[in-house]
Amino acid sequence: MLNRVRSAVAHLVSSGGAPPSRPKSPDLPNATSAPPAAPPQAPRSPPARAGSGGAAPARTVEARASFSRPTFLQLSPGGLRRADDHAGRAVQSPPDTGRRLPWSTGYAEVINAGKSRHNEDQACCEVVYVEGRRSVSGAPREPSRGQGLCFYYWGLFDGHAGGGAAEMASRLLHRHIREQLKDLVEILQDPLPPPLCLPSTPGAPGSSDSSQLVGPQSCWSSQKEVTHESLVVGAIENAFQLMDEQMARERRGHQVEGGCCALVVVYLLGKVYVANAGDSRAIIVRNGEIIPMSREFTPETERQRLQLLGFLKPELLGGEFTHLEFPRRVQPKELGQRMLYRDQNMTGWAYKKIELEDLRFPLVCGEGKKARVMATIGVTRGLGDHNLRVCSSTLPIKPFLSCFPEVRVYDLTQYEHCPDDVLVLGTDGLWDVTSDCEVAATVDRVLSAYEPNDPSRYTALAQALVLGARGTPRDRGWRLPNNKLGSGDDISVFVIPLGGPGSYS
Amino acid sequence: MLNRVRSAVAHLVSSGGAPPSRPKSPDLPNATSAPPAAPPQAPRSPPARAGSGGAAPARTVEARASFSRPTFLQLSPGGLRRADDHAGRAVQSPPDTGRRLPWSTGYAEVINAGKSRHNEDQACCEVVYVEGRRSVSGAPREPSRGQGLCFYYWGLFDGHAGGGAAEMASRLLHRHIREQLKDLVEILQDPLPPPLCLPSTPGAPGSSDSSQLVGPQSCWSSQKEVTHESLVVGAIENAFQLMDEQMARERRGHQVEGGCCALVVVYLLGKVYVANAGDSRAIIVRNGEIIPMSREFTPETERQRLQLLGFLKPELLGGEFTHLEFPRRVQPKELGQRMLYRDQNMTGWAYKKIELEDLRFPLVCGEGKKARVMATIGVTRGLGDHNLRVCSSTLPIKPFLSCFPEVRVYDLTQYEHCPDDVLVLGTDGLWDVTSDCEVAATVDRVLSAYEPNDPSRYTALAQALVLGARGTPRDRGWRLPNNKLGSGDDISVFVIPLGGPGSYS
Repeated sequence: MLNRVRSAVAHLVSSGGAPPSRPKSPDLPNATSAPPAAPPQAPRSPPARAGSGGAAPARTVEARASFSRPTFLQLSPGGLRRADDHAGRAVQSPPDTGRRLPWSTGYAEVINAGKSRHNEDQACCEVVYVEGRRSVSGAPREPSRGQGLCFYYWGLFDGHAGGGAAEMASRLLHRHIREQLKDLVEILQDPLPPPLCLPSTPGAPGSSDSSQLVGPQSCWSSQKEVTHESLVVGAIENAFQLMDEQMARERRGHQVEGGCCALVVVYLLGKVYVANAGDSRAIIVRNGEIIPMSREFTPETERQRLQLLGFLKPELLGGEFTHLEFPRRVQPKELGQRMLYRDQNMTGWAYKKIELEDLRFPLVCGEGKKARVMATIGVTRGLGDHNLRVCSSTLPIKPFLSCFPEVRVYDLTQYEHCPDDVLVLGTDGLWDVTSDCEVAATVDRVLSAYEPNDPSRYTALAQALVLGARGTPRDRGWRLPNNKLGSGDDISVFVIPLGGPGSYS
Repeated sequence: MLNRVRSAVAHLVSSGGAPPSRPKSPDLPNATSAPPAAPPQAPRSPPARAGSGGAAPARTVEARASFSRPTFLQLSPGGLRRADDHAGRAVQSPPDTGRRLPWSTGYAEVINAGKSRHNEDQACCEVVYVEGRRSVSGAPREPSRGQGLCFYYWGLFDGHAGGGAAEMASRLLHRHIREQLKDLVEILQDPLPPPLCLPSTPGAPGSSDSSQLVGPQSCWSSQKEVTHESLVVGAIENAFQLMDEQMARERRGHQVEGGCCALVVVYLLGKVYVANAGDSRAIIVRNGEIIPMSREFTPETERQRLQLLGFLKPELLGGEFTHLEFPRRVQPKELGQRMLYRDQNMTGWAYKKIELEDLRFPLVCGEGKKARVMATIGVTRGLGDHNLRVCSSTLPIKPFLSCFPEVRVYDLTQYEHCPDDVLVLGTDGLWDVTSDCEVAATVDRVLSAYEPNDPSRYTALAQALVLGARGTPRDRGWRLPNNKLGSGDDISVFVIPLGGPGSYS
């Protein structure tokens, strides 16, 4: 998430806030008490000194949070120091000994080249058991049902303007998903279509008058069919929102600074759900074929949504921004001339006469990795960022950001997968310098060098992908074999096998 | 557009309005004075009696407009009567003698089975010359430039709640496009990239003060590249908007009743631009391969846009509608129970406790052809509908409708087309009962029965497509060979050859 937030940090720091304190337990049932996030910090501050307190029972709240890496890495104090070393940029993976990640998932990560103090990516990989709430029908549970559900879960969280939001999301988002699924445990295991209406929850008011009922008669005679799959999608969507709301509630006490992109995979009842909010990406490589499983949400891809919001709610622009896009900044001397522009309805461009309010800064500007909302942030979906404001202004940016993911579904049962078929998740540190085809080529090259039943092959593949994006130090930079610059960003990769040794069936 | 507007007509009729009068000349330069649209009429009124005044110089304003069919059909008085006969439903095409449509374009149409008084589809096919405005650079025009531009134009307009909007659009939309292109004549013929800024138009204010300039510095150093293609897209988009605004201005005097979907093709400088607003559709069939060239805009495909608008501007819902979607109408007795729903952010479904305001009618309801906005209209983009209101209410629906098309571009120079490669445009009367594959099969079957250089083959193909969607009268209805019901709607089809005898090169 390097370079994707400008100017935000000064505001975060200047916004005061309580001193770092031990967080209260999150709102969620069974939430384990977890280390608090790091306090506000400048993303370009120098790397932490090696040995400054990275041991497991950290000396201060700040130090503990600063060095937080995924627990499945099982990092020793020395390993933690190496993981935090911007000079060496050692690739980290779970140890080859002991318990593997579910499905023999491969994982590798590397810290950035020094542009933020710590690695602001976080990751989570869990098997989550969902116990049903008492029978939703209100009747005593039948013995054959209510057996609970298991889902497999992988998450990548790419933080910006601090590591707090990514850390919190990596710790709690899957619990929000579990909460949302609790009501569905029986329904999802029932071959019948989901009931459209459930009896009231205890204490809910009963039927009431219908004085608010309007005149028009129903225009549909039958009812809409709702699938089990769409219930899981809805559960994941709402879990993202509740996670974001929790961050908003707890941001003062817990110092949940910054925000994060979230890319999450849920495997449940034969289907893989890929939920993405931000600019991380997921692809399936199946028999050499590439199947995109996500879409990036950036100021460019969401330009029209952002412009529409600015147009409908001009108060959100604070008189400082215009919802129109121009191909470059309009100069005062150009007043009265005609400049190319496009608005929320247009994909093409046209000329308009420049008026005084067109001199305001455009809500959306820039191209590619330099595209920004309100000259500040380069991603438009994700979690957190509740304190994010425009530089030299108090204008909040959060209203333009969406916490909702796009969820794509892949039915694992529709295809007989071989051990070389994988789902690859990566933060933008991977994708900025690696094409889908290059990933597919690496998949082929690395996996063919291992026996199909060797469970370490997916970790080796994740490492190869991270190394291929990082490059090696040469000519005052990290460079790829073709001498182009490697990624100086944090890089994190999951490789999830879709068949073979880690079989889930 | 059958069955796509409920309840609207009563309001249109009851809204009064001036008596039918000769329209003043439209706002556009060179607009020909044209017959006024028909006055408000019930779409399900009985078919007009044959011979009730369909001759070319009609006896009354109403009669003239009622029978308006595309001029390129060159219908005789008798042909006009047959075209208006719901019982026979004779397929109409341009005569095989005399001047052909540009590119030997094929066209066929048929009236509905009696559900609206007249055929509410309209069509237009023109070659339009665009004369540049005086040199946009302000300098005297160079002799080598300013030669003007030609574009080829095809439009299908599927009216609802009356034929006025479709008739007006078929007469004027290409003129709006021409107006938008006038400023671009030089720019589009210049191999250099379009200038981002043009000198001020005469009488425009010069440079002014920059007191409104805000603080944030530009986040982009370079300027965005704007292509010639995106200028044409912008011109078409703005032409749709100006057409819609003209309808709004003139709807009283001219009786522009109802609204229409618009599907338009522009061929300019080697590229085909397909602009669609509504539920008509366009596909290219190329060497047997199907290339979709449009997307339908309906309450289902635009649900989230509509819900977002209702959420951000609740006053548009008038306290009568809820922006939430439910799988069926919520009953008052279900208050306090939990019902499946989804909001503007969700693609999945979840349960929520029913509260009083959930008993309001949903903004979007129904499925497939029965889906409706505000229980009234089944398409969400198009032109007109300025008077459309919710039944038993004064709530306007127009704010939820968009007049902007989606424009897709196809570069004709990137592929060597053969005479069997065609672009097929059809109103929903075709697509409701015909799949893309069936269209492709008909393309293959009909064209292979004709010599490649026989220019009548595309008309024969259009006729075959219309006949295949209409069916034949049998068992108290129009039935297809498989005994399913044919389309009872108006059906209109253009077949545009992309290579071969009608070559444009």
